[in-house]
Amino acid sequence: MRVVIVGSGAAGLTTASTIRKYNKDIEIIVLTREKYIAYSPCAIPYVIEGKIKDFDDIIMHSPEDYKRKRNIDIIIESEVIDIDSNKNKVKYIKDGKEEEIEYDYLVLATGSTPFIPPIEGVNLEGVFTVKTVEDGKKILEYSENSKSVAIIGAGAIGLEMAYALKERGLDVLVVEMAPQVLPRFLDPDMAEIVQKYLEDKGIKFILSKPLEKILGDKKVKGICVDKKVYDVDMVILSTGVRPNIELAKKAGCNIGKFGIKVNDKMQTSVSNIYAVGDCVEVIDFITKEKTLSPFGSTAVRQGKVAGKNIVGIPCKFPPVLNSAISKIGDLEVGGTGLTAFSANLKRIPVVVGKIKALSRARYYPGGKDLIVKLIFGENKKILGAQIVGYERVAERIDALTLSIFNRLTADDLAMGEFCYAPPVKMVNEPISLAAEDALNKFNK
Amino acid sequence: MRVVIVGSGAAGLTTASTIRKYNKDIEIIVLTREKYIAYSPCAIPYVIEGKIKDFDDIIMHSPEDYKRKRNIDIIIESEVIDIDSNKNKVKYIKDGKEEEIEYDYLVLATGSTPFIPPIEGVNLEGVFTVKTVEDGKKILEYSENSKSVAIIGAGAIGLEMAYALKERGLDVLVVEMAPQVLPRFLDPDMAEIVQKYLEDKGIKFILSKPLEKILGDKKVKGICVDKKVYDVDMVILSTGVRPNIELAKKAGCNIGKFGIKVNDKMQTSVSNIYAVGDCVEVIDFITKEKTLSPFGSTAVRQGKVAGKNIVGIPCKFPPVLNSAISKIGDLEVGGTGLTAFSANLKRIPVVVGKIKALSRARYYPGGKDLIVKLIFGENKKILGAQIVGYERVAERIDALTLSIFNRLTADDLAMGEFCYAPPVKMVNEPISLAAEDALNKFNK
Repeated sequence: MRVVIVGSGAAGLTTASTIRKYNKDIEIIVLTREKYIAYSPCAIPYVIEGKIKDFDDIIMHSPEDYKRKRNIDIIIESEVIDIDSNKNKVKYIKDGKEEEIEYDYLVLATGSTPFIPPIEGVNLEGVFTVKTVEDGKKILEYSENSKSVAIIGAGAIGLEMAYALKERGLDVLVVEMAPQVLPRFLDPDMAEIVQKYLEDKGIKFILSKPLEKILGDKKVKGICVDKKVYDVDMVILSTGVRPNIELAKKAGCNIGKFGIKVNDKMQTSVSNIYAVGDCVEVIDFITKEKTLSPFGSTAVRQGKVAGKNIVGIPCKFPPVLNSAISKIGDLEVGGTGLTAFSANLKRIPVVVGKIKALSRARYYPGGKDLIVKLIFGENKKILGAQIVGYERVAERIDALTLSIFNRLTADDLAMGEFCYAPPVKMVNEPISLAAEDALNKFNK
Repeated sequence: MRVVIVGSGAAGLTTASTIRKYNKDIEIIVLTREKYIAYSPCAIPYVIEGKIKDFDDIIMHSPEDYKRKRNIDIIIESEVIDIDSNKNKVKYIKDGKEEEIEYDYLVLATGSTPFIPPIEGVNLEGVFTVKTVEDGKKILEYSENSKSVAIIGAGAIGLEMAYALKERGLDVLVVEMAPQVLPRFLDPDMAEIVQKYLEDKGIKFILSKPLEKILGDKKVKGICVDKKVYDVDMVILSTGVRPNIELAKKAGCNIGKFGIKVNDKMQTSVSNIYAVGDCVEVIDFITKEKTLSPFGSTAVRQGKVAGKNIVGIPCKFPPVLNSAISKIGDLEVGGTGLTAFSANLKRIPVVVGKIKALSRARYYPGGKDLIVKLIFGENKKILGAQIVGYERVAERIDALTLSIFNRLTADDLAMGEFCYAPPVKMVNEPISLAAEDALNKFNK
């Protein structure tokens, strides 16, 4: 039996490794456009910042490693051009030559492509997106001869890049269409804390305005926002990603509103074709609507599900909350589930609990602010959570994600059991305090 | 209406503050033997270690603060000697004079007393327990003229004190009757990591042996264990605590196997007497048996429950898992629910998942070992968890406590949603990896 996987990101390679973990005999072939595999795109801003020394550090395995340790064949720099799902064949180009390969199972892990706004100047020298190791290397090189940069998009990658390039000594201007930073997982009040932190570092922001134009002849010289010109030497577009669905279409797989349609086994409408990672649609746990989940951790989980199902181990991919965490400078920022803002848009009535607490006992040195915001439905069930702090945020977000999935109430969290020791916690867990704050509003 | 509270620890003062939060009129009087109130006994080792500068730092409020800010009367250095629950009267001695006070509600927050083993020499100069600020001050003073110390009992406080006194330059010998350190919340394999860490710092251990005798004329000169003599200048007894139940008995409250009996409102068998904190029995969530929960965080939660019920807000104290966390030097050690060892004693068959992972992405600088052990029942439901690491342990323990309360399975945790960013997490959450390790054993 042969499984062909298209794509060498976290989703594709996890599928490959999972199949091999449970089955030594299946032939596994991974086709990838990329030159470097098994790296973490989320790490790119931290290499540019200098926290991680070199791009080589974030490449965890070579194709030779995969062959030697797991007997997985990875064909790099190969571009799949067609899929014939009746004949179970994939056509690809490698070294300028067209090749064909048959499969028993095909896995589409085709990922996503950075969205490029349809405006003037996006093709100028000095305009970058942040997706591949090559992107990272080019940004780093170009930044060495640049004095200023405009970051378009204030999502997690945008802000991480803004901080990184500020650290490298550039003047940084962030332009965001939404009226706040991190609109995908923070409410305006929480986003303000993050923006203030970055402003204190000298980063400038233009909110509520789209980028109109990138200016320059050959190279970037500036940008135009709200009819004003800002001189910058480089532009980074971090305006989201779009799922790569072209190959799935060619294979005859059904496509949904956002991406490739799959069932909870990660199987497409073509029974021997699976799809995983940024290119597929998933289900939102709260709204039950279709959504995207372009996260490395989602890709890994989906790869495990697809791999297990292909070898015959039943396994389901559950609905998502798209919990997110970002480390921007010293700040740790996380969110999960619904924001109060998005609940409002969906006309879901909510009650909010919010508290400013500390990460350690008040008298224990080194404790830092920890701001916790919890969003509850009318039935007191928790629907979302946001935390901004300097330490111990990520695992609290995980605990709150678990709380949402298990439909815990404000009472459960206010009276919940949390461990305690002065160096790591307040005796009153901040999550409990925020839940109590909400309870007081329910009781009014 | 008047509420009298006996005891000024976390349980008593939280009860007082909770009553005041919801009712401005009730008269609240706290009677306490102690001179200092509102301090954290868990912080004592960290003052001795020098992490916290002064004992004054861990005293968070004065009786005057309580009077001024919350209109709560705290009568310090007052010893309650009798309770007449027919006449609703408390008798106490203050400044050598006997006083009497009537109550509408009485709250017993009488706490616990360190257990003193019934052996020779426990009254010698240089023998200490670790409970009050005065204890801490005496230990610190005595340690300044001491070269060596024996710590009796390798629970969390024992090990925290061992580390603290080693840091102050003393030779430290830890004596523990059980064959391992931290027997209450770690299995032997996890305890070994902690012991090894402390041995590397130069701390010595004698396990599986009881302390037989403390030697000396007036002052401590040594201890005798397994018929051998070890020269030490001071001895710290950290051999657990016993609930203070004498006043409850005098009041006619029912006493259980371990402590004062209360219902889930924290009400004793006498309807207008509540009891909270170390002195009461609670219910173990897993075994449904009675147990103790002598933790500051439990005391606070019980105080909130008692306070709310007294002012008429319904609120229940749920069964406990006794989740625990300790920071010993750089090591963060946590546990919740059943250990494999205790499951074995109770003849509960379990399957264990264990993994050594990292606290950050492999390539991100500063990542440290994180060892996660999960204990599952035969139905794959999680029953317990233990983590030893250097960062980000406490909140993982909380997430696992939530998982036990919500009866999650190994499948749920293996496929669970966890947020991810390279500076704070591996893309594969260690909890998921440990759950997968267990699943592989279930499938065999």
